[in-house]
Amino acid sequence: MNLAAFYHSGMYPEIYAPDRFHLRFSFRAASGDIETCTLVYFHKNHREETTKEERMSEQYHLGTSVVYTAVVSFQKPARYLQYYFRVTGKNGDTRWYNAWGTVEKCPDSGFFEYAYANKCTVEYMPPKWSQGTIYYQIFPERFRKGNPSYAPEDCVAWGSKPTASNFMGGNLDGIRKSLSYLAELGVECIYLNPVFTSPSNHKYDTTDYYKVDPHFGINEDLRVLVKEAHEKNIRVILDAVFNHTGTDFFAFADLLKKQEKSEYQSWYHITRFPVREEADCYECFFGFAGMPKLNTGNEKVQEYLLNVLEYWVREVQVDGYRFDVIDEIDENFVLKIRDRLKRLNPELVLIGETWAEGKRLLNGCEMDSIMNYSFRQAMLDFFAERSINAETFGHRLETALSRHPDETNMAMFNALDTHDTKRFINSCSHRLDSFKLGVVVQMMFPGSPSIYYGDEVEIDGENDPDCRKCMTWQENPGEKESFRFYQRLIQFRKKHSAIRNGSFTTVLADGRVYGFARENETEIIEIFVNDSDDTVEITVENARSILISKGNFYIVCRKNGEIIEEICS
Amino acid sequence: MNLAAFYHSGMYPEIYAPDRFHLRFSFRAASGDIETCTLVYFHKNHREETTKEERMSEQYHLGTSVVYTAVVSFQKPARYLQYYFRVTGKNGDTRWYNAWGTVEKCPDSGFFEYAYANKCTVEYMPPKWSQGTIYYQIFPERFRKGNPSYAPEDCVAWGSKPTASNFMGGNLDGIRKSLSYLAELGVECIYLNPVFTSPSNHKYDTTDYYKVDPHFGINEDLRVLVKEAHEKNIRVILDAVFNHTGTDFFAFADLLKKQEKSEYQSWYHITRFPVREEADCYECFFGFAGMPKLNTGNEKVQEYLLNVLEYWVREVQVDGYRFDVIDEIDENFVLKIRDRLKRLNPELVLIGETWAEGKRLLNGCEMDSIMNYSFRQAMLDFFAERSINAETFGHRLETALSRHPDETNMAMFNALDTHDTKRFINSCSHRLDSFKLGVVVQMMFPGSPSIYYGDEVEIDGENDPDCRKCMTWQENPGEKESFRFYQRLIQFRKKHSAIRNGSFTTVLADGRVYGFARENETEIIEIFVNDSDDTVEITVENARSILISKGNFYIVCRKNGEIIEEICS
Repeated sequence: MNLAAFYHSGMYPEIYAPDRFHLRFSFRAASGDIETCTLVYFHKNHREETTKEERMSEQYHLGTSVVYTAVVSFQKPARYLQYYFRVTGKNGDTRWYNAWGTVEKCPDSGFFEYAYANKCTVEYMPPKWSQGTIYYQIFPERFRKGNPSYAPEDCVAWGSKPTASNFMGGNLDGIRKSLSYLAELGVECIYLNPVFTSPSNHKYDTTDYYKVDPHFGINEDLRVLVKEAHEKNIRVILDAVFNHTGTDFFAFADLLKKQEKSEYQSWYHITRFPVREEADCYECFFGFAGMPKLNTGNEKVQEYLLNVLEYWVREVQVDGYRFDVIDEIDENFVLKIRDRLKRLNPELVLIGETWAEGKRLLNGCEMDSIMNYSFRQAMLDFFAERSINAETFGHRLETALSRHPDETNMAMFNALDTHDTKRFINSCSHRLDSFKLGVVVQMMFPGSPSIYYGDEVEIDGENDPDCRKCMTWQENPGEKESFRFYQRLIQFRKKHSAIRNGSFTTVLADGRVYGFARENETEIIEIFVNDSDDTVEITVENARSILISKGNFYIVCRKNGEIIEEICS
Repeated sequence: MNLAAFYHSGMYPEIYAPDRFHLRFSFRAASGDIETCTLVYFHKNHREETTKEERMSEQYHLGTSVVYTAVVSFQKPARYLQYYFRVTGKNGDTRWYNAWGTVEKCPDSGFFEYAYANKCTVEYMPPKWSQGTIYYQIFPERFRKGNPSYAPEDCVAWGSKPTASNFMGGNLDGIRKSLSYLAELGVECIYLNPVFTSPSNHKYDTTDYYKVDPHFGINEDLRVLVKEAHEKNIRVILDAVFNHTGTDFFAFADLLKKQEKSEYQSWYHITRFPVREEADCYECFFGFAGMPKLNTGNEKVQEYLLNVLEYWVREVQVDGYRFDVIDEIDENFVLKIRDRLKRLNPELVLIGETWAEGKRLLNGCEMDSIMNYSFRQAMLDFFAERSINAETFGHRLETALSRHPDETNMAMFNALDTHDTKRFINSCSHRLDSFKLGVVVQMMFPGSPSIYYGDEVEIDGENDPDCRKCMTWQENPGEKESFRFYQRLIQFRKKHSAIRNGSFTTVLADGRVYGFARENETEIIEIFVNDSDDTVEITVENARSILISKGNFYIVCRKNGEIIEEICS
């Protein structure tokens, strides 16, 4: 056996309590040489009388490695446990794995420990509603022009080519007027890019966190938007841009004016005086002088921003936040954000922006979810770039899933594109088939799919600012074929609980043909996508053959062995 | 190459910033088949212009695995980095390791990311003073009888056999009177077992967190003890027992009295009414009805206990806390403990009790250090039980070190015994040689050695309560040979900075003979212990031979190749 490949950290998320009465364990080993992997656990003071075993199952295949998992139930809150793993190889050898690593005989000490599943007043699992919800991301300046009186004076015509600085007049009232459209599509939660006062069209350089940007409306418009969305069972989350402010923000303005005498010196990271609006005078976001970086370790800054978060929850009943570049923010502050918001309302969802895999942010004490750019990269590499084959694609997807608790995976913000990326259709070089197959996988994959406004009507766009084109409302977008395509997948998704909470298994990986299954206690769904240039024949239950033509997909749902629904292109 | 053994988590502690201008990386691979392991890193938006490489060095040998590390320096705060690893095998193959795992060619995406080394207002490294300080743990009821007026009425004679419930009259004034003794020994920080009001002799069932136990003195005695200790450059830390209270604690007493009407219901985990002092009415520490478990997730409980911590820092200037069974406490509360205490004074040390390896507690946001029972277990297995040979012993020590940042390792509370264990001399079946060699390793190992009161004068004791015997003061303990032995090791330790901050390398592992080196920029120290039954010959610099008789040790310190000091038994 490959002993050096054995791995278990002894901590979250390789052991965690989804609730007080269950523990979920995972263990990693090399592919191919393990016959059985067994969890052995017992009360730390009564080993002999209490020892139990649980055979672990292969959950994820990562290529060179396999991840085994087991869930154990307890009558009382899980506590005072010790445990180790027993691994038997295909060659018949047995080894044990404890906190010291691999040992040659059944260990008498060096056990892993699990102390106590506390009653968490701050729930560390993502809110149930957020596990599998369907997001729709809106860049407000470009979605819809509602009340025309808010439009900036220097507005260009709706549908003009986006530049880094032009304005086209989208606003909150426009979004409100589109709620029926979104409901018809099947959207469950709107994620709004920043809406607070700021000089730019993207609003990531905040001037006033307490005031809706005058070009987007007034605070009351936001309240009404959330209220009417709620009436349609659509939630709304806002963008919290806390890593940096704009230079017009009161604290930075004070600093520019009073220099060394400003009481807000400690709110930023000043590198030299006199402070001018120049990038070498202070730390700033990616070197942009217009975005001075806040000192988020400072308690006053923390308190100010925590109050902002609470304010909008109380005032307009938003359902959570997406936190801009949260991986650049003081970790201590992130911990406080969760504590404060979840105490206010445990149903609020907290989504962090990171472009990395986000393991730290998803440690149970920080974010519920992240913008899942890892998932997107795998999707790009398979469907858009075609730089990986189906086998590697499957390993990538399972690697991504293996990093986090199931509950977290189900809450992941799975976008194919955002305001910060090329449109997915552009990434696919406008190959509509690849685009659609990507959407099929996105919609059937564990997690919360996010539709970037306009994807459903084939709006295209290269990198920022081109990916921020205006939504088209002239021809009724709800009648477009691509809209119907999204709608059909969403309806299927909503009808079948296994898409939302089922397990994930790769069932076919062959060149450019990929298939996976989602299974829960009531049903099993298999999804096949053919992104090759040929018709392929695949085999499903009872040796039944299915032909899938190039660029097409096939989804089948079975219950107790009976096919209850099939869809294809 | 063994590709399945490659591992890097992409997060703390496998990448961390000891300060804003340095990042420390580690990467694990199988032993024996790697030729070179290289870190490749670059600015995430300017890969081509900024790519740099750093050859990693083998730092720890864990048996089947090796841990490679590298430290990288930056001119500006480390930020916006992406990185991956390039590994070349002894067979000439090259592979790359990124966030997707092992890949066959140099990756273009899927990089690990490091976002930003923030200016931490809550420092996440342990205080400098605590990195390598020499602790002396005192169980106050048994250390020394000072002011006799405090003695309990039912006191038995000093030196009686300890039972679970008897009292012998030790108090804080006794400790104060022993400060010269401790200073002479070389102690740098006293860790006091609980001193607050409680009905038991161990005081782990607190009645009043704001009042020194009347048998130990009054609050003023604690203040004076800390003050006089500080005058001798000895710090003092207290035991914070926050997982549970005693049943006389006001909140629990109120609950017993008012039952469902008590406002303190939510302070505990009540399982049924009426609440009697019985273990099935509420969750309690290890089933002890006398120790009802606090609901440490409750904000009011948190605030109460945080105030207690701040109170004793302000009132008597304690230097930190040892937190009883902190791994059983709500994690959110632990995060707040650090935030509050480090903001009050970043020099406070926070030591958590856990019997496991403590990776979570040492994540930079919770504790500075833990009671290092993993280290103790390795010491027991080698010196006391003799169940492992020197090679396995070395792997165990390096496994323990490989889990944490260097700074954390240097702050580990390395005890051979505590109030909760057999005395180390008893573990060694009273083999004084093995005991002494264990102490040599403890004193020369990275971390903060802790002497459990009386170890230095060969007080013995089986498991609790026998390990809580009275300290002997009749025959001047400072003149005992074992005291001199400790003193000599401590003096050597204090003289040579490499013991405190040097690297650790196993240099000899042969049966029952073990040797290791500690090295920093100014010196290298080699330590050899011979716990075999024979004289052994070892080879040191320039092929020089040294004979070490059984049960003896040899320590040599060299500077620029010159021997500057040698000590042996």
